[in-house]
Amino acid sequence: LTLSSAGGDIPSAGILNVGDELLSGLTTNTNGTWLGLRLSELGFDVVWRAAVPDRIGSIEDGVLEALNKVDCLIVTGGLGPTPDDLTREGVAEALGLELVPHEDTLSALRERSRLLGMDRLPEGATRMALAPPGATLIPNPHGAAPGLMFEAAGRLVVLLPGVPREMRDIFSSRLESWLRDRFHGRLRSEVHRLVLTAGIPESRLAEEIGPLTETGPGTVSVAFLPHQCGVKLRLTARGFRDRREAEGWLDGVESSLEPVLGAYRYHAPTGDLAEALGMRLRSARKTLAVAESCTGGLLAKSLTDHPGSSEFLLGGVVAYSDAAKIGLLGVPRAVLVERGAVSRQVAVAMAQGVRERLGADAGIGITGVAGPGGGSPEKPVGTVWYAACLGGTTESRTFQFPGDREAIRARASWAAMRLLLRLMDGNRP
Amino acid sequence: LTLSSAGGDIPSAGILNVGDELLSGLTTNTNGTWLGLRLSELGFDVVWRAAVPDRIGSIEDGVLEALNKVDCLIVTGGLGPTPDDLTREGVAEALGLELVPHEDTLSALRERSRLLGMDRLPEGATRMALAPPGATLIPNPHGAAPGLMFEAAGRLVVLLPGVPREMRDIFSSRLESWLRDRFHGRLRSEVHRLVLTAGIPESRLAEEIGPLTETGPGTVSVAFLPHQCGVKLRLTARGFRDRREAEGWLDGVESSLEPVLGAYRYHAPTGDLAEALGMRLRSARKTLAVAESCTGGLLAKSLTDHPGSSEFLLGGVVAYSDAAKIGLLGVPRAVLVERGAVSRQVAVAMAQGVRERLGADAGIGITGVAGPGGGSPEKPVGTVWYAACLGGTTESRTFQFPGDREAIRARASWAAMRLLLRLMDGNRP
Repeated sequence: LTLSSAGGDIPSAGILNVGDELLSGLTTNTNGTWLGLRLSELGFDVVWRAAVPDRIGSIEDGVLEALNKVDCLIVTGGLGPTPDDLTREGVAEALGLELVPHEDTLSALRERSRLLGMDRLPEGATRMALAPPGATLIPNPHGAAPGLMFEAAGRLVVLLPGVPREMRDIFSSRLESWLRDRFHGRLRSEVHRLVLTAGIPESRLAEEIGPLTETGPGTVSVAFLPHQCGVKLRLTARGFRDRREAEGWLDGVESSLEPVLGAYRYHAPTGDLAEALGMRLRSARKTLAVAESCTGGLLAKSLTDHPGSSEFLLGGVVAYSDAAKIGLLGVPRAVLVERGAVSRQVAVAMAQGVRERLGADAGIGITGVAGPGGGSPEKPVGTVWYAACLGGTTESRTFQFPGDREAIRARASWAAMRLLLRLMDGNRP
Repeated sequence: LTLSSAGGDIPSAGILNVGDELLSGLTTNTNGTWLGLRLSELGFDVVWRAAVPDRIGSIEDGVLEALNKVDCLIVTGGLGPTPDDLTREGVAEALGLELVPHEDTLSALRERSRLLGMDRLPEGATRMALAPPGATLIPNPHGAAPGLMFEAAGRLVVLLPGVPREMRDIFSSRLESWLRDRFHGRLRSEVHRLVLTAGIPESRLAEEIGPLTETGPGTVSVAFLPHQCGVKLRLTARGFRDRREAEGWLDGVESSLEPVLGAYRYHAPTGDLAEALGMRLRSARKTLAVAESCTGGLLAKSLTDHPGSSEFLLGGVVAYSDAAKIGLLGVPRAVLVERGAVSRQVAVAMAQGVRERLGADAGIGITGVAGPGGGSPEKPVGTVWYAACLGGTTESRTFQFPGDREAIRARASWAAMRLLLRLMDGNRP
């Protein structure tokens, strides 16, 4: 949910990326992402972005569409010397502008080709010096094609080369400060804050939080982003006088959410629940050992993804076969036979067994049916038992996780981690 | 430069990605790239792509703009249960369609929320069952929000969830074949074939293969795609009369490459080396046990990512601490003290120890420094010893892998799998 962010006075920006390779998916449009982030941070409301092929008509359509919507349009790509570089022509066509050679740029291009050992400027290259009369040409330190900037119909239009390094450098070194000057006083920068939750579905979270009522000098909005092991809340403060004021209001909103989120919230720089568990264990100076059946090493792998895991993880056992459960973990054969490998008793015996054998403070055991085979009417695919023990306390749970093998394994491993976090916190639901 | 690909009879496709986070650059638009690639491969001319914010008016504008240009429009994102999910409403507004509850979808959503332990369907969630009358709802195996497909003004409009995994699965499992049927005879497909290699760098592979000379009625080209555990070769046949003719020429090219590729090639439907090793072990009816230190469960996790892994993987041990190496694997304490934990002797003792303790045919042991801490002048970060044993043969290797923690762990695990594959094949270099 993003509450309406703005009165009409915040300048809007659009991005038009030109290139066949963007549409056929052979190249990821990193320019669009990068520019979106920089323009938002600068304080624009980025409301439109499109990719069009290297055709004059498509570029023309894209420009006209954009100028209906935005105060500032940035076009990338198609400024080079080859016949498929048609951005200048498409933009000029859309705006009814003529293109004339820019003398300083022509000289610079001639000098550049001389430095590269060519005896003359290749014919196509002269096109790179064409610009609408009165345009500002922006030198490109990393390539031949300069950027262009001009006003048309009360809008600012900027053309930048498509090579990411060239585009970024021109933006950061020159354009950004020009944009700040041109739209001075109207830009409203956004300040973001992420809050991580696990163990509560997106729809219930949205229901419990309800609409945000805080509006001071600006607005604070919340977006729900389903993510890996849970739901990320992104709080965004817009329209405040400065960053400090915005941070103050974000603090207020965050505190007001704490009663709802407390039980589900976790803290991890990367957003990963395994990192959160590792941080909790390290700060409590507790060690852990894990025993996995259906997750097959995923839990150990997740915990060891993060540097410093050797400080708390003593080791793990992947016990797929009954023999491994008996031999490596001391699960009694009688329990396996009577209760079956997917049972509370086996999950508990695995957690306690691996903890004892490795001399750890805490233990986790997971056993279940990840599928696609191996399900039965009593224990369908997705059925998982998991247990965590810490000190004298052992807790176990079962759940029938939805999804495919990958989802079931991931969800089982997150659920087991949440169970141990809960044991460590004492007060979680 | 892409030569004009089409007369007007090739169907055109457009992609509209909905989400504030795409415009503000907080999320990279991987859906747009992925869909562009798949639609191009399928034989569409992808001519338009745009990203718009989570606002009804913006979605409406985007749809109208697209339907001026394309025969098939795919919209992603904004189908979830929260109030910022507005794609259904925006599309309906643009096309003048009403939205009515789809009963089967409502039942499926109720069943799903019951499985997730909720006593009722949250209010917002019922919106996920809304669709224009007569639309086809496409079940989403990985999430709640279904896809939608319907005809409007002679165009095909498809709405897909924005979560990449859900979007991709719906596209691959259902939509692709429907699109093929709907635009039957007008699509001009390229035929691709992937050949998987591991253990040889891209530049050497390109050198050894040289330029492809085969050109018959069409052309076959090769692209080198560095990928996960090696380099994929993508062979592309273009301009052939039909798929069968193209496949015949691809067969010819593939055979001509075999003498160069044989030693490095592997076979796995998902492209994953772990799957290839699992398939080899299963077809040879051999069992495996693995012992990991620096890879921390990644090897076991990779092997168990694939269904049927219980047929060959008896189990694994993650032995981070010396105590775990001694207690769970029988690595002699004296060897750990004299040679250090990262040594040939320890890797071999881990491979043999885990194989014996679990009674497997084959064993793998990996020990190394994944970083960022733990390096020394003699054993810098990236130093890994790995060993594989099968029957009476044990082989071990060391390598100083480049990259960060994640890259080092992945590369070590692939190298160890290649070593065992080599032992199994007998004839690999």
